[in-house]
Amino acid sequence: MPKVRLAMAQTNPEVGDISANLEACFAAVSAAAANNANLVLFGEMCVTGYPIEDLATRRSFVRSAETAIDDFAVRLDQAGLGNLHVVLGHPALAPNGTGDHWAIAQNCASVVFQGQVIGRYAKHHLPNYSVFDEYRVFVPGDQLLTFEVNGVVCSVLICEDIWQSGGPVAQLTSAKPQLTLVLNGSPFEMGKQQTRTQLVSNLATEYNTAVAYVNLVGGQDDLVFDGASLLVNRSGNTVQRLPAFETGVGYADLNTDGTIEAVTAPGAESSPAVTADLLESVWQALVLGLRDYVNKNGFKSVVLGLSGGIDSAVCASLAVDALGPSRVFGVSLPSVYSSDHSKSDAFDLANRLGLHIRTEAIANLVQVAESQLNLTGLAAENVQARMRGVILMALSNAEGHLTLTTGNKTELAVGYSTIYGDAVGGYAPIKDVAKTMVWELARWRNHQAQMLGLTPPIPENSIEKPPSAELRPDQVDQDSLPEYHLLDRMLELYIDERLARQEIIDAGFDAETVDRVIALVDNAEWKRRQGAIGPKITGMAFGRDRRMPITNKYRQK
Amino acid sequence: MPKVRLAMAQTNPEVGDISANLEACFAAVSAAAANNANLVLFGEMCVTGYPIEDLATRRSFVRSAETAIDDFAVRLDQAGLGNLHVVLGHPALAPNGTGDHWAIAQNCASVVFQGQVIGRYAKHHLPNYSVFDEYRVFVPGDQLLTFEVNGVVCSVLICEDIWQSGGPVAQLTSAKPQLTLVLNGSPFEMGKQQTRTQLVSNLATEYNTAVAYVNLVGGQDDLVFDGASLLVNRSGNTVQRLPAFETGVGYADLNTDGTIEAVTAPGAESSPAVTADLLESVWQALVLGLRDYVNKNGFKSVVLGLSGGIDSAVCASLAVDALGPSRVFGVSLPSVYSSDHSKSDAFDLANRLGLHIRTEAIANLVQVAESQLNLTGLAAENVQARMRGVILMALSNAEGHLTLTTGNKTELAVGYSTIYGDAVGGYAPIKDVAKTMVWELARWRNHQAQMLGLTPPIPENSIEKPPSAELRPDQVDQDSLPEYHLLDRMLELYIDERLARQEIIDAGFDAETVDRVIALVDNAEWKRRQGAIGPKITGMAFGRDRRMPITNKYRQK
Repeated sequence: MPKVRLAMAQTNPEVGDISANLEACFAAVSAAAANNANLVLFGEMCVTGYPIEDLATRRSFVRSAETAIDDFAVRLDQAGLGNLHVVLGHPALAPNGTGDHWAIAQNCASVVFQGQVIGRYAKHHLPNYSVFDEYRVFVPGDQLLTFEVNGVVCSVLICEDIWQSGGPVAQLTSAKPQLTLVLNGSPFEMGKQQTRTQLVSNLATEYNTAVAYVNLVGGQDDLVFDGASLLVNRSGNTVQRLPAFETGVGYADLNTDGTIEAVTAPGAESSPAVTADLLESVWQALVLGLRDYVNKNGFKSVVLGLSGGIDSAVCASLAVDALGPSRVFGVSLPSVYSSDHSKSDAFDLANRLGLHIRTEAIANLVQVAESQLNLTGLAAENVQARMRGVILMALSNAEGHLTLTTGNKTELAVGYSTIYGDAVGGYAPIKDVAKTMVWELARWRNHQAQMLGLTPPIPENSIEKPPSAELRPDQVDQDSLPEYHLLDRMLELYIDERLARQEIIDAGFDAETVDRVIALVDNAEWKRRQGAIGPKITGMAFGRDRRMPITNKYRQK
Repeated sequence: MPKVRLAMAQTNPEVGDISANLEACFAAVSAAAANNANLVLFGEMCVTGYPIEDLATRRSFVRSAETAIDDFAVRLDQAGLGNLHVVLGHPALAPNGTGDHWAIAQNCASVVFQGQVIGRYAKHHLPNYSVFDEYRVFVPGDQLLTFEVNGVVCSVLICEDIWQSGGPVAQLTSAKPQLTLVLNGSPFEMGKQQTRTQLVSNLATEYNTAVAYVNLVGGQDDLVFDGASLLVNRSGNTVQRLPAFETGVGYADLNTDGTIEAVTAPGAESSPAVTADLLESVWQALVLGLRDYVNKNGFKSVVLGLSGGIDSAVCASLAVDALGPSRVFGVSLPSVYSSDHSKSDAFDLANRLGLHIRTEAIANLVQVAESQLNLTGLAAENVQARMRGVILMALSNAEGHLTLTTGNKTELAVGYSTIYGDAVGGYAPIKDVAKTMVWELARWRNHQAQMLGLTPPIPENSIEKPPSAELRPDQVDQDSLPEYHLLDRMLELYIDERLARQEIIDAGFDAETVDRVIALVDNAEWKRRQGAIGPKITGMAFGRDRRMPITNKYRQK
């Protein structure tokens, strides 16, 4: 018999739905008990969902979470599960009143045992960069929590605490836990699973402790939590990893000799590798983000314009992977400038995916607007995009679909879109995907289908043809923009790496193009500010990850 | 002769326009020298504008500001102004590398004298609540800066440092300055001028020091800095106050006997009172916010729909006060449901204000859309609003106007608007003004005109008639919403005061209505997220002041 059988449970909580979230926790604890576990670890804020943003500043909300934890402890005990130690994440009111400003709560982990909360840890390092605002809404804690299970010393930390030095993590030296329990709400970014593995491994060897790292699963607004929880022994080797992008429970035994080993429980693979393929992990993140946004917000279906181009084709394919074809409604919205292939490629896509498709020509609407207002040039081009927006939103209103907007990150960066036109929609599935990666994803998805002997979902023609907005005769994107592979690299240097103009030029781009691209990015801030949210997959997504003033005269020299 | 003649200079910097901002500082220092001042104090971040948000994380930007300060010191000296001590606010790279996360810079004040920076202070308390994210982008300092001018001991602090206890402010006890210099970027909120006066007065008496409090002036995105800089003697009495909402320089003498007194310089009133009338101060804030957004973003004119209703009437009146009538373009956008008075009231307004007006009926556009898409009910109502949006944006594209969206705070709170319809626009002048206050402002503005013997700008009928969206026959707002005076009070309790459902009921509202209002507010979060920015005038504006998840199942019990 092991001294401790640990269950690591990665759940997919919904922000604010405390009772449903705790129902999932109860199911996991029950399963853990059935599998003879005596310690269960959940992810950060598994009780309330994460991040709760300014809900943390509402006293009534925080009290609800506290009460729910107390009730949950009693419920477990009454159900005969009181002898498991269960570690859950939730907000709680700060014991010594408020923090600096608005913060009244702490980001906590409670240890529940025999009908009571027997210990509570408050996160010390509060991330306040990138998409995080935790210093805004939480009061930091400063004491490591240590408790024993069957004589095994366990310490508790939360997420950012192990990414920074100092604070409670340093107290591991004196606490000397055999097992360190880390609750996480770590959103997906490309390559981050590898980074986390290295971080957890380093923690294990530095403090000579096994480390259980449990991450949340699921989409929450612009974030996707990718699970992939892991268990590392005190030598820093991964002994267990839970699947990415799926809920699940994994088991491991801490033996009397101090060794730790994974238990292969029904339905839990013992140690899947880190998602090998970058594109596969991105696709999965985008699918999960989209599915959870739709389902958690109560939409039965989505609607999107299908132009025959690559962006809408990839969005439609993601939507079908996320929701199934019966919940996806495509609309071909041809104008007088639309090519034949724009229509045939859209229908080809719809046939491959099995989604609903209809045609709503915009010619009549555009003609009335153009003649009433005497529109020409850009104003006339934008009216086409806006009439498409009017139609999509009318179908959304009439039939209850969530409208998806299909703009990619490159387009958002340089403002190559029509606000209130193609930008209408509540969710932007590829908002953080650069144009060049949109093509890569399309090829990857087609290839994956071929490997499985299935029809590639995305028409070759949508991948291969030159991209065009088709708002005037013979228009192609490259009339207005640099080649996409160059543009995307410049954008990465300017936005993600925050390089100065001269540094970008030094990287091999001509000054005039660099100036033009920087100006396009800076001038499009107001449009981005009114854009739909979409899933973050890079280190610097537009939205709360990058907070730039709209009114901004800074032009780099 | 006084030992120190202090010039307090409140400038209106533009974010990112370092050279223009320093040009304004140079002019102020020149004027100060001509008025025999030997100490000049500017506002927080006067060199770069404020807030600079994530620009603070761009190394090249921060370096530009540092270089500019060094150059400015040399320039002053070469212009024969080197013997003045000049205190300016700007970002600088943190001396000991980066802070916790992304922050590389500090929020600084430099003392410039004889061609050099002779001292630099870094703000200690970094506000990270409400609209502020300073802990995100700045590294805190911890040392008070003290220097002497003509034997007078002066200490330097920045804004939030005097709103919190501890940190450098406590070091005033040992520094014993005769004069404490505080650089501020304190945005307007209703009643805040009184709060600041009390705060500064308390600081003066607690540390037995005169306090010069210089605030910025001007609109920056959703914030309006209202100036109203003040000088308080060591007894806590205000000896000088600069005008609100205008740039200006004020002078005061610190005498050998330690007394301080205002000098009435040309163009500077010695001690205007705190803006007496709340509505007047709100009106001025809204006018300045709108004017600066338009001008700083390079727009020559604005366009807005004129419905004959109170919201568009107040927005038009604000726009004319901000820009003059020749820069304001109104459009009457009648539908088949529009009342006669909606058209006549719009033209009455336009005549009173002298702005441009034209009519663009939406009937043809709506008819094509309705028949093509078989629209009824809400979908048909929204199409009317969206066709208005299409027309306004087409005129914006064709003629270069900034589109104003006229929604008020109440409407945004409960989602009583059509996204991509009446919500189109780059700036929302009354976004933070509750409906009941919109009426109050209209009455105040008309009364003010009458007092001056001028035509009241807003038609009585627009003020008195029952509000209606006119999207179906005989519709009025109160078909769908509680009476506005009740609704606004409930919203204030729920949003501004963050009360729980039960607490709102206990304040005297019926449970059913409270539940309905809370649900409306929570469900409209996705629309607000895509809304235009507009000037903050309350303690809790929508936007970065209130950060709530869109996906949020929390329903209060």
